[in-house]
Amino acid sequence: MDANPSTWSEHTVGAPATDADGDAYRALSGNAAKGIAVVTAAHRGWDHAVTVSDYLSVTYDPPTMLVSLYSLSRIVEAVAGAGRWGLSLLASDQRSVAERFGEQGAPLDALLRQTPHVRRDPDGPALIAGALCWFELRTVATHEAATHTLVVGEVTAMGRAREFGAKPLVRFQSGYLR
Amino acid sequence: MDANPSTWSEHTVGAPATDADGDAYRALSGNAAKGIAVVTAAHRGWDHAVTVSDYLSVTYDPPTMLVSLYSLSRIVEAVAGAGRWGLSLLASDQRSVAERFGEQGAPLDALLRQTPHVRRDPDGPALIAGALCWFELRTVATHEAATHTLVVGEVTAMGRAREFGAKPLVRFQSGYLR
Repeated sequence: MDANPSTWSEHTVGAPATDADGDAYRALSGNAAKGIAVVTAAHRGWDHAVTVSDYLSVTYDPPTMLVSLYSLSRIVEAVAGAGRWGLSLLASDQRSVAERFGEQGAPLDALLRQTPHVRRDPDGPALIAGALCWFELRTVATHEAATHTLVVGEVTAMGRAREFGAKPLVRFQSGYLR
Repeated sequence: MDANPSTWSEHTVGAPATDADGDAYRALSGNAAKGIAVVTAAHRGWDHAVTVSDYLSVTYDPPTMLVSLYSLSRIVEAVAGAGRWGLSLLASDQRSVAERFGEQGAPLDALLRQTPHVRRDPDGPALIAGALCWFELRTVATHEAATHTLVVGEVTAMGRAREFGAKPLVRFQSGYLR
């Protein structure tokens, strides 16, 4: 009842799901507006950094966050290996940072050299300067979910990196929310 | 390096975390911009509906989403009991819907009577009319994480509920992104 038939559409997912189902889902799930962040980890002397939008706050008791990462990615290996990671929430003027860390397989040392960042201790993750705020986390659980790994972390330290009043960088559909 | 000391702040979380840590986290984590959605489930003849912002897309292969729900809430019971649930992504003109389902312990029958919705089959979850889009999901895993339950669901059906061009309802800091 009450649906406007001219704007209501339905797509039923097959069992198993097909490529067409995946395409339909990608288009629709882009309607979930999401603040963009960068996950960072330092592992075996290398920095890793990947742009993400699939993270969330689990609870404030104790402060706990979750990020969903592609299971075959280097960042999963680095986060798992290091046992700790950073999450920097980007501001609206940091599109170039989001794009820099959005590409797969780019050489990481050069990327971080171009990106102002802060490291709170020598083995810690790089935290992106100019972000709205940052969190350092310690992994407390991981769960496999289809192609992805859900990494649950407790916050060990956190703070602002930017003056109040700055706006977030938000992905929506195939672009950014202006 | 490169942090602007006038805008950089640090808060270290105790072990165990204190109430003050929780408060600091709540303030900072509000900087994560999030599209607002409503989770619905029909269980034992009753409808349940709760406004959420802590959900994410896990993967498109197969289409899979996750929502984090307070473990002692009725919605967790309903979602677990029904084994299926709905997720409707709200549009920017649906603030009143977000607020209606944001309150704890409100009588649910009246709430849904005031809210145009669609039910695809008699036992299915209510889907919010006028939302940007909707997903019906079948729970495939649940994980406990501190005070919350992470519910992972595979999408069984999905669609638009609104004309293209509508904007999302986005929470940021203590209000909505305008």
